[in-house]
Amino acid sequence: MLPLTGPSFLIDQSRTERNISRMLQKCEHHGVSLRPHFKTHQSLEVGRWFRNQGIDKIAVSSFSMAKFFADDGWIDITVAFPVNLLEIDLIVALSKKVRLHILADNPDTVAFITRYAELKAGVMIEIDAGYGRSGIHVSKVSVIQELARMIEQSDHLRFEGFLSHAGNTYQARNKMEVLAVHSSMLVQLNELKSRFLISYPDIILSYGDTPTASLADDFGGIDELRPGNFVFYDLMQQRIGSCSYDDISVAMACPVVGVYPDREQVAVYGGGVHFSKEFVESEGIRNYGQMVKWNGSTWGDIVANCFLSGLSQEHGIVEISDPMLLSKLKPGDLLYFLPVHSCMTAEAMRNYCTMFI
Amino acid sequence: MLPLTGPSFLIDQSRTERNISRMLQKCEHHGVSLRPHFKTHQSLEVGRWFRNQGIDKIAVSSFSMAKFFADDGWIDITVAFPVNLLEIDLIVALSKKVRLHILADNPDTVAFITRYAELKAGVMIEIDAGYGRSGIHVSKVSVIQELARMIEQSDHLRFEGFLSHAGNTYQARNKMEVLAVHSSMLVQLNELKSRFLISYPDIILSYGDTPTASLADDFGGIDELRPGNFVFYDLMQQRIGSCSYDDISVAMACPVVGVYPDREQVAVYGGGVHFSKEFVESEGIRNYGQMVKWNGSTWGDIVANCFLSGLSQEHGIVEISDPMLLSKLKPGDLLYFLPVHSCMTAEAMRNYCTMFI
Repeated sequence: MLPLTGPSFLIDQSRTERNISRMLQKCEHHGVSLRPHFKTHQSLEVGRWFRNQGIDKIAVSSFSMAKFFADDGWIDITVAFPVNLLEIDLIVALSKKVRLHILADNPDTVAFITRYAELKAGVMIEIDAGYGRSGIHVSKVSVIQELARMIEQSDHLRFEGFLSHAGNTYQARNKMEVLAVHSSMLVQLNELKSRFLISYPDIILSYGDTPTASLADDFGGIDELRPGNFVFYDLMQQRIGSCSYDDISVAMACPVVGVYPDREQVAVYGGGVHFSKEFVESEGIRNYGQMVKWNGSTWGDIVANCFLSGLSQEHGIVEISDPMLLSKLKPGDLLYFLPVHSCMTAEAMRNYCTMFI
Repeated sequence: MLPLTGPSFLIDQSRTERNISRMLQKCEHHGVSLRPHFKTHQSLEVGRWFRNQGIDKIAVSSFSMAKFFADDGWIDITVAFPVNLLEIDLIVALSKKVRLHILADNPDTVAFITRYAELKAGVMIEIDAGYGRSGIHVSKVSVIQELARMIEQSDHLRFEGFLSHAGNTYQARNKMEVLAVHSSMLVQLNELKSRFLISYPDIILSYGDTPTASLADDFGGIDELRPGNFVFYDLMQQRIGSCSYDDISVAMACPVVGVYPDREQVAVYGGGVHFSKEFVESEGIRNYGQMVKWNGSTWGDIVANCFLSGLSQEHGIVEISDPMLLSKLKPGDLLYFLPVHSCMTAEAMRNYCTMFI
C-alpha cells in the first residue's frame, strides 16, 4: 500500500471477491441471473473482478455511467433509472454500441423515444410495488398494458419485461421486516407477470436490492437480480442484518489531527465531503463510521464504543472511550472506519484517494 | 447558458458578487479584515470575482485546496484546519511559494513541524471557545502559553495569534441565538487576546462563520473575519436568518424523469450524490431542496409547498401540491432548487456539471 497522506478509501480485494462469489453462487443455486448494479463502486477495476467471475451484464444508474463501463468493454447494460430525455443523443449513441436496456413508466417518455428510429433498445416497464419512488403502481394493470402496447408498436424498441426495486427494505430494521417486504413484492410482481406472459411469453422480471438478495431464500418467478451494495456492504446493511462486520469490504483511513483527552475525543481529517453525511442511529446516538483495528495489511475487528460521532465538511470527531488507547494517539496516526453507506462514500471519494489492498 | 442534459449546479454571478461586496463593505465599516473561506465554492472562477473586489488573502480547509488556489496566483493563504502531519512535504513546498498560515492546538504537532527548518509559516493557535470540535479550550491559558512559547522558540515559525470558529451558530434557530453564541465567544476571545498582547503585541484574532458575520454588528477586538458560506448562502442560512431566499446565489437544475399525479409527486434526476443528503426540517417534514421559479435567465421566487422531500443516490422526489403545475409537468422538463447546504452541494457537483449564469 502506498503511504497515505489524507483521507483514503480502501477497497479490500479478497473480501470484495468473496462478496461477489457468494452472491453469484446464491443466484446460481436459485436459477436466477445476476446483473450486479455498478453504481455502488463506479470502478473499472472492481468491474473486472466481477468479469473474472463470469459476470457479463450489469446495471448502472445513469447514461454517463453506462458510457463509462461501455468504454471498458461491457456490452450488456441496463440503465436502472427512468430515462432522462435530455440525454437522447447519448442514449442513441450507446444503443449502437451495447445491448442497452432502458426503463419507462410514462407514455410521454415512450412517445418521445419512439421517434428516434436509430435507438435500438430493450425497454423494461418500471413497476412500483410499494417503494413509492418511481415506476407505475403494480395495481394499474391497464396503464401498464397500454405502455407495453406502445413499446411493442415501435419497430426499434423491444418490450422486455418488468423491473422493480424494493428500496423500502432499507427502512427495515431486521431480517423479518426485509422478508415481509420481499414476500409482498414477490406476490404482486408474479401476479403481474402472469397476466402478461400470455401476450408476451419472453418477458422477464428483474428485481433486487441488497437486503432481499442477501437475506431471502425464495426468488420464485424472478428472472434477474440487480443488487449493488453487496459488493462492499456497509454499516447500514450490517444493522439491517444483510451482512456481518467482517463482510464489509471497504474502509476509510483518516489521519488524526487533534487529540482531546478531556472530552475523550480525537479529531481526524475526514469529514462529510469524504464519508457523506449519512449515519446509523441507536438510542439517539448517531454513528457516522465505526472504528476498526488495523492488522498491518487490512482491517480486523471493530473497536467497541469507538466511532465517528460527528462530521463537518472536512473534520470528523471520534469518540474514544478507552483511556489506554486515547493516551497513545497523536497527530499523524491513522484511524480506520467502516462507512455507513458505501455507495455514497465511494462516490464522494471519487474526488480524493482510493486504494486497493 | 449551454443546454443542460443532467443535474447541474448553477452559480448566479450577480447575486454572488452582491454577496461578496456586501460582506466586504460590512468588514470595512467595522475595520475588520476579510479573509473569505474558499472551501464553499472551490472554484477558481469564483475566486477571481473576489479578487476583482480587492480581496488578496483567503482561508481554505486543506493543503491540497491551498495548492489549488496557490497555483492560480493566491499568495496569502490560511489553512484553517488542524495541520495534517502526513502532508508535511506539501506543507513545506507551499510555504516556499505563498505566505502560509497554519493552525496548531497540540504540542506534538508543533514539535514535529519545528524540525522542518525549511517550513517558514505563521502559526495560529486554534481556540475552542464553545464549539467543541478542534482547538485548545479557551480556559486553558497555561497550555496556550506553553504552545505559544514553543512556536516562538522556533526560528522559522511565527506565532501570529488566535483562530476560532463559531461553528455552534449552525445549530442556532434564529438571530437571537446566533448573537448569544457570538457575544459569549467575543468576551472569551478578547479576554484571551488581552492576556497575550503584553508579550506578543502583534497577534491577531481571526474569527468567523457565516451566521455571525452576517447577523452580528459588534466585532470589537476581532482583526479578521473568515466566513465562507456567505458567498452562496443556502436554505440552512435562510432558516437561521443569515440571508433571504433572494440572496441564495446557487441553484440546482434537475430534469424531470417521472410524473406521479396520484401521489402529487414528480421524480427528478438529481439525488444524494448531487445535492448531498443534508436537509432542513420543520414540523417533522424534511426538505432537501426548495423549488424556485425560472424566469428564462435565472431563478426567481420560491414555489410555495414544492420541495424535495426525499433523495436516494440519483433520484429526487419532489412534492408538487399545486394541481395546475403538476398537470403541466412532463419528462424532460427542468426544475430548479435552492440547496440546503451549498458547501456540500458544490463539493458533490465537482463530479458533475457546474455552470455560471
